[in-house]
Amino acid sequence: MKLARADEVPGQEVEAGEGTVKQVLIGPGDAPNFALRRFTMEPGGGMPRHTNRVEHEQYVLRGRATVTIGDDEVTVEAGDVVYIPAGVPHSYRAEGDEPFQFLCTVPNEPDRIELLDED
Amino acid sequence: MKLARADEVPGQEVEAGEGTVKQVLIGPGDAPNFALRRFTMEPGGGMPRHTNRVEHEQYVLRGRATVTIGDDEVTVEAGDVVYIPAGVPHSYRAEGDEPFQFLCTVPNEPDRIELLDED
Repeated sequence: MKLARADEVPGQEVEAGEGTVKQVLIGPGDAPNFALRRFTMEPGGGMPRHTNRVEHEQYVLRGRATVTIGDDEVTVEAGDVVYIPAGVPHSYRAEGDEPFQFLCTVPNEPDRIELLDED
Repeated sequence: MKLARADEVPGQEVEAGEGTVKQVLIGPGDAPNFALRRFTMEPGGGMPRHTNRVEHEQYVLRGRATVTIGDDEVTVEAGDVVYIPAGVPHSYRAEGDEPFQFLCTVPNEPDRIELLDED
C-alpha cells in the first residue's frame, strides 16, 4: 500500500507544455497496471495539440480550461470527467485567474507525446 | 471521447456498505483498460473490512475518513493518495460532518467483494 499527500509529491515541468507541472502520484513502480498523475497548469499555460499512444482518463480538480479533443472544443471545470482515447489529438489552455488542475490516469505502457502542426 | 459532469452521473448504493454511493464515471464500456469511479460516504457511513480481486488507485476529493489497509489504520482527507494492492483487506469509515468522497480507479477485470469477519 502507498499513502501520500499529493501536495508533497515532487513535480516536473512538462517540456512540451507551458507553465505545466506533472506529479506522478502512483507510478509504474508502485502499481502493476496504470499510473495516476496530477497536472497543474498556470493561467494562460497549457499544452499544444498533440497525441499520446495511451488513453487518458481525467478528472478536473480545480480551475477552468479550454480543451480540444479531436474536432471538439470544450470548456471544463472542477468535477468534469474527460476520456481521451489513445491517438486522438488534444490540447489544453488554462483559462481564468487560478491554476487548472486535473488527475490523469494512463496504462503502464510506453508512451510518446507527438506535437501536431498548428497550421 | 467522453465528457461528463460527475455530479450528473447516476449513482448506486453499495450493498456491502452503509450510506455509500458509487458512480461509474468512466466504465468498461467507455474505455479499454480501467474504470474511474467516485464514491461518496455519508458521515458515519463507510464499508466494513473486505477484500477485492483488483487493486485500487484512489484520490480523496473531500471529507475525512479512517481507512484501514492491512494492519495499518490511517486518517485521510482531500488531496491524499491511496494505493491498495489486490487482495489486501481494507475498510472505510467517514468521519466528521461532511461526506467523504474519493475517486477509485480499478482495472477492467472481474472483481468480487469478500467481507471479512470483524472478530
